[in-house]
Amino acid sequence: MSNRPYLDWNATAPLHDAARAAMIAAMDVLGNPSSVHSEGRAAKALLERARTQVAQAFGAEGADIVFTSGATEAAGLALAGRDLHCSHVEHEAVSSWCVVDAPVDAAGQVCVADPARAALQLANSETGIVQDLPQGLAVCDATQAFGKLPIAFNWLGCDMALVSAHKLGGPKGVGALVLKQGLDVTAQIMGGGQEMGRRSGTENLIGIAGFGAAAEAAAQAQAQGVWDAVAEIRDHLEARLLEAAPEGIVVGQGQKRLAGTVNFVTQGWKGETQVMQMDLAGFAVSAGSACSSGKVRASRVLRAMGLNDSQASSALRVSIGPGVTRNDVDRFADAWAQAHKRYKARAA
Amino acid sequence: MSNRPYLDWNATAPLHDAARAAMIAAMDVLGNPSSVHSEGRAAKALLERARTQVAQAFGAEGADIVFTSGATEAAGLALAGRDLHCSHVEHEAVSSWCVVDAPVDAAGQVCVADPARAALQLANSETGIVQDLPQGLAVCDATQAFGKLPIAFNWLGCDMALVSAHKLGGPKGVGALVLKQGLDVTAQIMGGGQEMGRRSGTENLIGIAGFGAAAEAAAQAQAQGVWDAVAEIRDHLEARLLEAAPEGIVVGQGQKRLAGTVNFVTQGWKGETQVMQMDLAGFAVSAGSACSSGKVRASRVLRAMGLNDSQASSALRVSIGPGVTRNDVDRFADAWAQAHKRYKARAA
Repeated sequence: MSNRPYLDWNATAPLHDAARAAMIAAMDVLGNPSSVHSEGRAAKALLERARTQVAQAFGAEGADIVFTSGATEAAGLALAGRDLHCSHVEHEAVSSWCVVDAPVDAAGQVCVADPARAALQLANSETGIVQDLPQGLAVCDATQAFGKLPIAFNWLGCDMALVSAHKLGGPKGVGALVLKQGLDVTAQIMGGGQEMGRRSGTENLIGIAGFGAAAEAAAQAQAQGVWDAVAEIRDHLEARLLEAAPEGIVVGQGQKRLAGTVNFVTQGWKGETQVMQMDLAGFAVSAGSACSSGKVRASRVLRAMGLNDSQASSALRVSIGPGVTRNDVDRFADAWAQAHKRYKARAA
Repeated sequence: MSNRPYLDWNATAPLHDAARAAMIAAMDVLGNPSSVHSEGRAAKALLERARTQVAQAFGAEGADIVFTSGATEAAGLALAGRDLHCSHVEHEAVSSWCVVDAPVDAAGQVCVADPARAALQLANSETGIVQDLPQGLAVCDATQAFGKLPIAFNWLGCDMALVSAHKLGGPKGVGALVLKQGLDVTAQIMGGGQEMGRRSGTENLIGIAGFGAAAEAAAQAQAQGVWDAVAEIRDHLEARLLEAAPEGIVVGQGQKRLAGTVNFVTQGWKGETQVMQMDLAGFAVSAGSACSSGKVRASRVLRAMGLNDSQASSALRVSIGPGVTRNDVDRFADAWAQAHKRYKARAA
């Protein structure tokens, strides 16, 4: 499969070499971070090194970083029992805990009535649309944004943020809740009292080491402007898709978006069908967020933006990152244009 | 530190070579298991392969395996909101969710009044004492036992079991809830609906691959009788400790115990002090469970068995596994005997 361009970075990004190396090195760290002997202290030092890397990468120096098994767990930690408000563009990991009643406009922007009682994403996984965060936001889901946008937790103006390792080149199954110092959360997982009692359980040391290294690498790459090149390739791909299907809609075009996300709606041509045809043609893309893949239904996100059911069922998401080449997306665009021609011929 | 004998396997066991290899291989598996394209299906296949390995290793074919971030999270999944009963010998990850009122006898055996409303460990982390499980037990904490004892979930007679990867040679931060088919649990982490909706969040694929490989290797090693040799070394160590300190108590001696666990009480000589002195002498050992390390206090487990506060503060836990040699424990026993002599001289 090495020759297959992987164009589904928002589902999960490839493991960064720095993360891989850090994880392999962590395999030799023998101890339990809670143990007081040398081996335990070495494990604890590795854990705290990763915590510092994550804090620095996310501009969250001075904030608390609670390592979790991913942004989904972090969402529960931040949101359980609080009945915060959110909109339908949030990931289910967030909306499952919230009152879903915040309006969304056609541009995908969420109207937040009371930031202190709201959860809001920084960037959407399906469309890449970036929200203008209100000051004093209770919880920000930064899962898709951190590592891709020039932002710092300390400047976001929110109390807590959810982050995930595998969206920025770390391993799957690791994430964190970032919270302003002085705030607290009710532990959801109880036991040995790790993570200052906020999240018990022996830490996923190898994964956390990978998260730290990936966050550091992602922040460096972001600062070096690698996403500018990604945005150019993204624009090129969108132009190619529109050339092949002038009737298509580039969702969020002209909006502030993630550099690597394309959401292209070809009304009537099911997103799932496109994904399967492109898979057979040798390309990994998506019809929406990975978690709801397989479930053939209209995108909640696109419906919330006012697209109709037919449109919201006909989205193709192509998400890329540093290293994906113009040639990769050209090959994809060629294959997609052919498939689109066949679709139009059948539909005619 | 490679020359330091690591004698704290109950806190965390060394990563097995098979787990390491499986994890490194999994780093090349690009997709999100929830994605429908080839890369996603390959990730899903790896996940399900690990699930089969774990089920087979634990004699849990036909049972459901829900992967979690560890036994601690699995405990919450099994126990939250149920008010089951347990005793003080349970790990805090279990007792935190339970009514702690089950009596414990001097041999460390727990008296379970109503198995269907009880949680009970299979083996204790501090003493290694193995419980005679009653039929129809609601939840069994098998964290310290699986991989070390010749048992199968399908024959244990319990509804659910908690297991952990890092106690049997897998990575830290991975575990599972094993449950009889037909039973269900209330999801604690909500979102994308992974693990049949019982535990949302993108799966820790690299860690789970390591868990599968480690479980398989542990089951094979167990079947080959490697723990018999460990028990011989354990007995030798206990004899050496008693030789040096005839006043000492081998907790659980004569009881059915894990082959690799020594709990030795030298009344008056603080366990924490012993751990620090042994660490300086080049040996990783423990005074109790890793999670409560650092907190200088009497062992709840030993108190529950009727030892007094002074005794329960003076425990040394040495826990070993396959590969630890008689020479390793002899070197330890020599160092410990010297330190004990110094302690006695000061105390005199």
